[in-house]
Amino acid sequence: MSLDGYIAGPNDELDFLSQVEMEGEDYGYSKFCQQIDTVIIGKRSFDKVVDMGFEYPHLDKPVYIFTRQNLPAKGNCIYYSGDLVQLLKQIRTQQGKHIYCDGGAELANQLLELQLIDEIILSIIPVLLGKGIRLFRETLSSSRLELKESKTYSSGLVQLHYARKV
Amino acid sequence: MSLDGYIAGPNDELDFLSQVEMEGEDYGYSKFCQQIDTVIIGKRSFDKVVDMGFEYPHLDKPVYIFTRQNLPAKGNCIYYSGDLVQLLKQIRTQQGKHIYCDGGAELANQLLELQLIDEIILSIIPVLLGKGIRLFRETLSSSRLELKESKTYSSGLVQLHYARKV
Repeated sequence: MSLDGYIAGPNDELDFLSQVEMEGEDYGYSKFCQQIDTVIIGKRSFDKVVDMGFEYPHLDKPVYIFTRQNLPAKGNCIYYSGDLVQLLKQIRTQQGKHIYCDGGAELANQLLELQLIDEIILSIIPVLLGKGIRLFRETLSSSRLELKESKTYSSGLVQLHYARKV
Repeated sequence: MSLDGYIAGPNDELDFLSQVEMEGEDYGYSKFCQQIDTVIIGKRSFDKVVDMGFEYPHLDKPVYIFTRQNLPAKGNCIYYSGDLVQLLKQIRTQQGKHIYCDGGAELANQLLELQLIDEIILSIIPVLLGKGIRLFRETLSSSRLELKESKTYSSGLVQLHYARKV
């Protein structure tokens, strides 16, 4: 997110991310991807990746796409329109030990509110955007976090790793 | 600020700061105070410190208190109701090489918008508040920053030091 808390501009612009793009630096992303076994993502975010012409990167694992529509599964992509708590319970009885919430902000905030997020890895980009889509909504309850790690990169990106404090 | 960008709760509550209070740890504050020669602060923030029963800590230096009222100076406290750009110009022709904006958010945002803030030192407290008074307002123009330093403390506080990127 930007220092002022936005993960995209008012029209979903992501161009502010280009200022931290560096050859050979993925900010721990590929290592992180190896640690996860399940992905959940909102349909709007999923469609956005596909619409930009990218292949969705986690198709080697079950990907639960959260939506209000009833849609049939396609390969590893499972569309889900039911209750979030139930879904998480269900995943956890199966493979799900390390479930990655890959956006968007609405899904992340619902999971935070339900106290279903155990860890947050947040990258702060050195920019103020002034407006846009906030990562954290004003609907959240107050909750304490524990800092597990902080990493500073030469691009000015600071990556903070928190765990929910129980 | 909290990880979600608040410097106080909805009713100016500051109790979330107590979770990073540690005996003998001032997070660089006294060292920082030695480096500044002038303070500017909004009247509401200044009055809040005094109302809480504290002596305002920077009275050894000129303190410009920004307000819409016309009030007489008291010792080093100079009340100022004019134009911010003019005030900064005036201070800079005098002693002002290291001017500290000691709150509140409204004054800080005006200065940011006028591109009169050269450096930002920001401490991120490991907590989500969900609501309150934001440090960065939605009136800001987009601006790039340069990370000068990042410090991590055992309490989980992360202090980020940015300079305005010209």
